[in-house]
Amino acid sequence: MSEDMRFGCGRQATLPGPLRLDGGTLLSPVEIAYETYGTLDADGGNAILICHALTGDQHVASTHPRTGKPGWWTRLVGPGKPIDPARDFVICSNVIGSCMGSSGPASINPATGRPWGMAFPVITIRDMVRAQAMLLDHLGVARLKAVVGGSMGGMQALSWAATFPDRVAAAVVIASTARHSAQNIAFHEVGRQAIMADPKWRGGDYYDGDPPAAGLAVARMAAHITYLSEAGLTEKFGRRLQARPGKQDGAKSFGFDADFQVESYLRHQGLAFVDRFDANSYLYITRALDYFDLAEEHGGLLANAFRGPATRFCLVSFDTDWLYPTQESRNIVAALNAAGAPVSFVELSSPYGHDAFLLDAPEMNRVIDGFLKGGR
Amino acid sequence: MSEDMRFGCGRQATLPGPLRLDGGTLLSPVEIAYETYGTLDADGGNAILICHALTGDQHVASTHPRTGKPGWWTRLVGPGKPIDPARDFVICSNVIGSCMGSSGPASINPATGRPWGMAFPVITIRDMVRAQAMLLDHLGVARLKAVVGGSMGGMQALSWAATFPDRVAAAVVIASTARHSAQNIAFHEVGRQAIMADPKWRGGDYYDGDPPAAGLAVARMAAHITYLSEAGLTEKFGRRLQARPGKQDGAKSFGFDADFQVESYLRHQGLAFVDRFDANSYLYITRALDYFDLAEEHGGLLANAFRGPATRFCLVSFDTDWLYPTQESRNIVAALNAAGAPVSFVELSSPYGHDAFLLDAPEMNRVIDGFLKGGR
Repeated sequence: MSEDMRFGCGRQATLPGPLRLDGGTLLSPVEIAYETYGTLDADGGNAILICHALTGDQHVASTHPRTGKPGWWTRLVGPGKPIDPARDFVICSNVIGSCMGSSGPASINPATGRPWGMAFPVITIRDMVRAQAMLLDHLGVARLKAVVGGSMGGMQALSWAATFPDRVAAAVVIASTARHSAQNIAFHEVGRQAIMADPKWRGGDYYDGDPPAAGLAVARMAAHITYLSEAGLTEKFGRRLQARPGKQDGAKSFGFDADFQVESYLRHQGLAFVDRFDANSYLYITRALDYFDLAEEHGGLLANAFRGPATRFCLVSFDTDWLYPTQESRNIVAALNAAGAPVSFVELSSPYGHDAFLLDAPEMNRVIDGFLKGGR
Repeated sequence: MSEDMRFGCGRQATLPGPLRLDGGTLLSPVEIAYETYGTLDADGGNAILICHALTGDQHVASTHPRTGKPGWWTRLVGPGKPIDPARDFVICSNVIGSCMGSSGPASINPATGRPWGMAFPVITIRDMVRAQAMLLDHLGVARLKAVVGGSMGGMQALSWAATFPDRVAAAVVIASTARHSAQNIAFHEVGRQAIMADPKWRGGDYYDGDPPAAGLAVARMAAHITYLSEAGLTEKFGRRLQARPGKQDGAKSFGFDADFQVESYLRHQGLAFVDRFDANSYLYITRALDYFDLAEEHGGLLANAFRGPATRFCLVSFDTDWLYPTQESRNIVAALNAAGAPVSFVELSSPYGHDAFLLDAPEMNRVIDGFLKGGR
């Protein structure tokens, strides 16, 4: 995708707040970096909020300023796509805790004039959502036609419907879950330990020096495996060896270079990531994900999170997603049924595992298109 | 299990070699640390070789000298067990590349008088097996009643049958595979990168200082997740929080301590591991595992690895093992069938994932017991 989304309009809002966080502290000011595409209708009825995943950003349909890559969901958002700026007013904001312009550990702590580092308060998915609600107030958007997200974005969509049911007409929840499992937490803990084991992390106070790039790369590599299916990895790489100058093709090096293509790919994923992401943000956002348990926030019963027919739901899962398997979506659907909320759900087939929602998924597009049109 | 296996007899053999390695170099001398239990019959017909897994050792049925823990497979090996030193002459040796007394990167390089470090040659599963064959020569064991192993031990059992078919009457291959998949390689690469990213690793030349404990702990944590099933982790830990002094039970800390029990468990696994294992050995043995592809060693066809009815096979897989899923065992069974080798195979049900073979598995014991008796 190389289309230039000229209608993208990037901004940063500094909202006075304070935002009362789930952890009990107040955050002020609340800075939110966001992009909008399209124009808000006079009746305010065409606003769609798109929520990004763990390492995502607000550049859903416009070029990323650091990597120069096209927006991360141009397959879904753009002219002629299910979410179309010609019709919809599209908002995508960087979550708090992140590092693309919203308040996070790399932001300046007004109390010290220096980056927050680990003094930044631990946040939750609901805190991210409350900050987004402040942004919508700022933009004059009273109610959303839809909130849409995959993975952590899906958790935000769920949290939106649970926290502000009267502000959400429809929620699209893709490849997501209502709570992080023990295995999900375990993988994140490996990543956090990798970062914190890097001497350059220095308790999070590294902004005047080298960042803990090696630790962050290892964290990314571990996480990246969980985004892909075993079958997808086998199809893409199998046991194929790297071509390398001076080495016979297909021969092992009997050393510790990246012999296998999958090793080289993973190393590349790790290295590319550290150029665009802040290690402390990785700590904070993985923590928010691990803390996420929508049922727990509502007396232990997931159905209690949803208030009847206020919001229509659309859930999509992928059969090879082992990070948030289809059963997690089924659990949400069961709770929505119990709450009397309208819900459509489909499991799609894909070889790509969790990452499928970001890749070419025409069936997903059709499902979302039909769902959004069905609400008109 | 706390029974004192007094019949355990630990030794170290220094074999002149040289051992020609798959990588093309010669290793000499070849030191092999091993334990034996029981007595070799006059006709030499009761010898059973047990092969250990990645981080295992020769102390299969006797107390580990460093940790003080009982042998790692006392559920299978011991008085009244399927492998009984009262009947069988049991041999278990530390694989080359490891760190419990056999030649490995922490051993002294005779050329320099200093530890090999990364100058130690990269080895393969077949190299481990060839070294074991040298040990059997040394012990006067011409032919094995059985070779038995789980995980990497199962790969050695397969490699034994493929390399020395006339020396192996029976092979028991548990929770194993005939080749490492792209996902298997990917997880190991994360671990290796974690170790090599630790500044204390110093290119493997750390034996006169602090070892890269933080990197090795992270590697162990990542690998440990793959040994357990998602359902097993959920059953064991779920989202339960750590009890902690001064904190209300069940409350999140909103910090980066180990809030969840699964985090604390993983950290403990990492820390306990670095006390008993050498980081360089972890690099070398994971490399040997990733290189393992029994079909590739035999012209690309797995059936070619097996020569007809020379060896009887018993394969066991566990339904929740996602490291080496049942399909991997089925692929081996198909190849054995194609080769005309007698094989029995069973998939057992267990909540414990890959680790099931090391835990209480009475059905596995019955299967192995019946198989070994069937050959008499």
